[in-house]
Amino acid sequence: MKVGISAIQVNFPKLYLPIEILAENRNIEPLKLIKGLGLQRMSFPDVHQDTVCFAANALLQLLEAEQLDPKDISRIYIGTESGVDSSKPVASFLLPLVEEKYGANSTQHCDVVDLTFACIGAVDAMQTCLDYVRLRPDEKCIVIAADVAKYDLASGGEYTQGSGAVALLIESNPKMMSFDLTTGVSTEGVFDFFKPRRSILKSEIFSNTKIGDWHGVLENEISIYKEQPVFDGQYSNACYINRIKNAYFHFKKQQENEEPCFQDWEFIAMHLPYCFQGRRTFQHIFAAEYPELLTEQIGETPAEKLKALTKSDAYKNLVENKLYPCEIASSKIGNIYTGSIFLGLVSALYHKKEEELNSKKIGFIAYGSGSKAKVFEAELEKEWALQIKKTNLFEKLAETKAIDFMTYEKLHKKEQQTSIIVPQNEVALVSIEHENPVLIGKRNYAFIA
Amino acid sequence: MKVGISAIQVNFPKLYLPIEILAENRNIEPLKLIKGLGLQRMSFPDVHQDTVCFAANALLQLLEAEQLDPKDISRIYIGTESGVDSSKPVASFLLPLVEEKYGANSTQHCDVVDLTFACIGAVDAMQTCLDYVRLRPDEKCIVIAADVAKYDLASGGEYTQGSGAVALLIESNPKMMSFDLTTGVSTEGVFDFFKPRRSILKSEIFSNTKIGDWHGVLENEISIYKEQPVFDGQYSNACYINRIKNAYFHFKKQQENEEPCFQDWEFIAMHLPYCFQGRRTFQHIFAAEYPELLTEQIGETPAEKLKALTKSDAYKNLVENKLYPCEIASSKIGNIYTGSIFLGLVSALYHKKEEELNSKKIGFIAYGSGSKAKVFEAELEKEWALQIKKTNLFEKLAETKAIDFMTYEKLHKKEQQTSIIVPQNEVALVSIEHENPVLIGKRNYAFIA
Repeated sequence: MKVGISAIQVNFPKLYLPIEILAENRNIEPLKLIKGLGLQRMSFPDVHQDTVCFAANALLQLLEAEQLDPKDISRIYIGTESGVDSSKPVASFLLPLVEEKYGANSTQHCDVVDLTFACIGAVDAMQTCLDYVRLRPDEKCIVIAADVAKYDLASGGEYTQGSGAVALLIESNPKMMSFDLTTGVSTEGVFDFFKPRRSILKSEIFSNTKIGDWHGVLENEISIYKEQPVFDGQYSNACYINRIKNAYFHFKKQQENEEPCFQDWEFIAMHLPYCFQGRRTFQHIFAAEYPELLTEQIGETPAEKLKALTKSDAYKNLVENKLYPCEIASSKIGNIYTGSIFLGLVSALYHKKEEELNSKKIGFIAYGSGSKAKVFEAELEKEWALQIKKTNLFEKLAETKAIDFMTYEKLHKKEQQTSIIVPQNEVALVSIEHENPVLIGKRNYAFIA
Repeated sequence: MKVGISAIQVNFPKLYLPIEILAENRNIEPLKLIKGLGLQRMSFPDVHQDTVCFAANALLQLLEAEQLDPKDISRIYIGTESGVDSSKPVASFLLPLVEEKYGANSTQHCDVVDLTFACIGAVDAMQTCLDYVRLRPDEKCIVIAADVAKYDLASGGEYTQGSGAVALLIESNPKMMSFDLTTGVSTEGVFDFFKPRRSILKSEIFSNTKIGDWHGVLENEISIYKEQPVFDGQYSNACYINRIKNAYFHFKKQQENEEPCFQDWEFIAMHLPYCFQGRRTFQHIFAAEYPELLTEQIGETPAEKLKALTKSDAYKNLVENKLYPCEIASSKIGNIYTGSIFLGLVSALYHKKEEELNSKKIGFIAYGSGSKAKVFEAELEKEWALQIKKTNLFEKLAETKAIDFMTYEKLHKKEQQTSIIVPQNEVALVSIEHENPVLIGKRNYAFIA
C-alpha cells in the first residue's frame, strides 16, 4: 500500500518588497542579491497577519479545494518555529476557525500538535503522519508548515525574509506522490541559528534596583522574546553543508545504491534559506559523488577545483534541471522556514505541470538549524499534475502587491496600525486581549468574508 | 508484534518547599492544600537547573541503566511546554551532552525534535514513536517529557508548582508494557491556560516616545516572555472534565465494549495538574458509566447526587485502588506538566512492584490545556517489576531536601546567584552568553562529575 501526499495548498502574504528597493536602501549592490543570491522579492506580513493566519488560510484552502469534511481528518500536525504562544500550539488556534465554517464539533476528535526544530519541524510532522496512515490506511492527516521569517533591520539576514504556509493532505493511495520508509538523518547540537530569550537584569534598566513588580514581572530579570534569530551566517552555512552531506550519504547507504541517488531524481526539493543556497551547497554532494570530475577540473587547491566544477556544464545542467524549478517561488517569496522545502516542491511541480512525470522520483533535502538534515525521496503518482494546478501558485504570485521602503519599515517596526490591504476572504488577527487578567495576551482571529 | 515501553527513568529537583510552609506564608489553611488537594511538597529547580537539565539527566540515567549505545537510538522525541528557545528544540541541547560521555558522532544519525501542546505533548511524542517502531521493529526510540511548572508568586497556581522529566525507552517486544492502536481523542481550541507573549508599547514605558533601539528591540513594542502561564483555574477545570469525558467515550466507542473500560484497568494514570484533580474529575466518567448508582444517591439536584456518589464506597474503592497509586509521587513533586501522567505511571508501578500484574491493563488519561485529551490503554509485560525497580523512585524522593520560604522566594525571583546544592553527577546550566553577538543568549550546559 502506498502512502503520501494527495493535495497541497499554499498561503503567503499579499505584500512584498522588491529586493532592489531593499538593496538601494541598505547600500548593497542590487545584482549581488539578484544574480548572486537569486532574490527578487521579499514577502512581508500585513498588520493583520501572523503564523496562525497563514496556517489557517492554507488549511481552509485545502479543505475547500479537496471538498474535505473536517470530521474525516484524524490529525492536523504543524511544523513551526514562529508560534505565537509558548504552551498552546498554533494547531489549536485553527480548530475554532474550522468549526466556524464547518460547524460545532466538526474537529472534536482531531488530534493536533506543533513540532519544532527550526526549519525542519514540518518534515518531522509529515513523517509521523505518513507512519500514522501506514498503520491506519482509512484515515487522513493534514500537515502544515507555517512560519514568519523575520530578521533585524539592516542585519545580514534581512534580505532573506519571507513568510507563508504550505498545507499537505496525507493519505493512502495518494494522488500526488508516495514515500517509502527510508530517510537519511544527520544531527549535531550547535548554535548556528537560534531564538533565545534575551534576559536583562532589572538593575541594568532601572536606577531603582529594588523594583518589584514591573508589568507583572516579579523576577530580578526581564526575559525579552524576539521573533528575530541570533545567527552566524557563515557558520550556519557550514552546518547546512555538513548536515546535508552527512544525511545524503546516510540515505545512500540505506539504499544500497552505488550510483548517485540524485541521478534518479527528476528534481530536488531543498530547504532554501535564500534562493541559491541549494545550488551553492549541492556542489559538495556532486563533487563527492563524482570525484573524477572534480580531479579533472583546473585549479591548484581543492577549493579552486570545486569552484571550477560548479562552472562545469555537468553541474550547470544539474542546477538548471533539478534545482532551478524549486527556486522559482523562493525567489519571489523569500525564506518561509519550515515551509521552504514544500514551497520548492510546489514550485517545481507547478513549473513542470505539463510534463509527463508519472512514476518519476523526487529528492528531498531538509535542514533545520541547531542542527538536523533529512534526505528522502518520493515517487510521483498519477494525479499529481491535476492536483498541483489547484494551487494556482504562479497566478497568485502575480497578484501580490509591491510596497515601498517606508511602508516596509513601518510594518517591520510595528508602527503601522491599519492593514495595507484590508483582509478579505481570509483569516485575520483581529485583536489581542489587554484587560482581562485571565485572558491577557489572547489573540483573537476571525475569518473576514 | 508488541510495541511499547521497555524502561523508564525519572529526574526531578533535589529541592522542595513543604506545602505547609507555603500555606502559612500565603495565609492558606494548610489542610485545604494537604487534605483538600493532596499536596505535600512542591519541588523547585535549583539555580543551575532548567528543562534541559531535567531532560538530559533523565536521558543519561536511561542510557546508563539500560546500558544502551546511543548509536542504537533512532529517535529522541521530547514533549515540553517550557523549552528554553523558540526555534532550537530542547532535544538538540541533549546531543552534545550525550556525545560528551559516549563519544563524538554517537548521536549523528539520531532524529530529534520537540512536540508542544501544553501538558500532552509527550503523549503525542510517545504515540508517534510507537508508530515508528511498529513499522521498524528493529529500531529503538527514546521519548522524554520535561518541564518546569512555574506560577506567579501568590497566584492561584503557586501551590501546584513542580518540575522534572521522565524518559521512556520505546521498542518492540517491550519489557514493561505494550500499546495497541486505539486512542480516544477530544480537542477544542480554548484559552483555559496559555503562555502568551506580553506586549508592551514603548510609549507605555518611556516618556521619550521616539526611543529606537532598546536592548536590540527596534519595534514599537517590547514582547516579554514569562515562564508563568495566564490561566483561569475554574474554567480550565471545566475544560479538563469535558475533554477527558469526551475522549473516554471516544475510546470506548472504538473498543466496542459495553462495560466501563476502567473496570479492566488495574490503575489509571491521569494527567494531574494537582494531586487530587484526577479523583475529582473521574467521578464524571464514573457517574456516566453507572447512571443507576448516581440515581440512587441521596440529593435533590444532580450536583448533590454527584457529590454523594463521590462519597460512596464504590467510588472510594476506585480512588483507593486505581487513582491513589499514581498520586503518591505527584503529592511529593507537584505538577510536572508533560511528565505528570508518566510520573503517575511510575508512581503506581513502583508502589505495586511486589504484586503479580503480568498481562493486566493500565488506563491512561492525558490532558493538555488549549485543549486536548487522549485516552488509551497498555498491557503490562513480563519484566515490568524488574524494570520499575531501577527507577528507585521513592528512595530518590526520600533524599530530597527541604528549603525555607526565603530561599524559595529568592529562587523564584532569580535573586539567588549560587546553587543551593552544588551540582554533582548531573547536567547543569553553567553559563549564558551575554557578549558575543552571534551567540547571545546561548545556554551552556555541562555534566558536572
